[in-house]
Amino acid sequence: MEVARQAIEGGARLIQLRDKAREKGLQLPVAEALRSLCREHGVPFIINDHVDLALAAGADGVHVGPKDLPVAIVRRLVPRGMIVGCSTNNAEEARRAQADGADYVSVGRLFPTGSKADTRPATLESLRAVKAAVRLPVCAIGGINESNIDQVIAAGADMAAVIAAVVAAPDVRDAARRLAARLG
Amino acid sequence: MEVARQAIEGGARLIQLRDKAREKGLQLPVAEALRSLCREHGVPFIINDHVDLALAAGADGVHVGPKDLPVAIVRRLVPRGMIVGCSTNNAEEARRAQADGADYVSVGRLFPTGSKADTRPATLESLRAVKAAVRLPVCAIGGINESNIDQVIAAGADMAAVIAAVVAAPDVRDAARRLAARLG
Repeated sequence: MEVARQAIEGGARLIQLRDKAREKGLQLPVAEALRSLCREHGVPFIINDHVDLALAAGADGVHVGPKDLPVAIVRRLVPRGMIVGCSTNNAEEARRAQADGADYVSVGRLFPTGSKADTRPATLESLRAVKAAVRLPVCAIGGINESNIDQVIAAGADMAAVIAAVVAAPDVRDAARRLAARLG
Repeated sequence: MEVARQAIEGGARLIQLRDKAREKGLQLPVAEALRSLCREHGVPFIINDHVDLALAAGADGVHVGPKDLPVAIVRRLVPRGMIVGCSTNNAEEARRAQADGADYVSVGRLFPTGSKADTRPATLESLRAVKAAVRLPVCAIGGINESNIDQVIAAGADMAAVIAAVVAAPDVRDAARRLAARLG
């Protein structure tokens, strides 16, 4: 909660809860607290993978990857207006996500990262191809930090998702502020 | 699928999909196939833990335990008429599950079991207490087999959930038939 609060104060414009390990009943109180915090600050709150948890917690959206429930099905399970994001790795996947009703797509992992080692690698070229293929906002993800964020912006990223670059920074607020400033 | 089919042919009156490991997108095709099989045979199909997967697969119900989303919330997330089951361990939990809208409760694990080692132990006395506390059907679970099913029936179980006693039997159909016969 404290990290999320500082990130938002620094300029994070969206918070995602990503917990691949714990049961959803154990995640629910955290999700509800984050939802309240985000709402208080007018920042959308997205839950990773779990549509049921997102609905239970009153999150603004849910993000699904290639092993999660498909976007077309998720769209049917959530109320109108709920944000559905989808991980993609190339233009074809992004086009399909758009056709199935995704509100944004992510592209990654773009750079080496400790927290998403199980995910598929992508390149700045894939990011460019995805940006050219869909009209949706595109979120760059995977190992993004101050040293490479300009490259992902140049390749067309509308957003950048980070964990370590903010969470592991000596000053969370300041790290979020510097990254947010690059995105304009 | 083959085990489920044989169990149903033997007399299983409900099938539950329980997969605590794989991502829900990977479970979806299995869940859809089981739902079709069950529907074909007029047998309810329940999914363990995952409300979103249950909704996506068109299952007849969902079963939640103490670390899953709470029954009262699950009730709100599923359409009217969908079965909601809840793991309980004593009369108080069973009464709460009933008040929150559960359609049945389970009690277990009653006997030693390989597949549910992480679950809480319960006794035949807990089973009796739960049966006396609620008007809902009560399902006994955990290490139930031909050698002890009469005890759980005597203690008030309306149903018995098994894995090994059927799945690991030399003849699945026959094992299911013998257990089902005991339940009358």
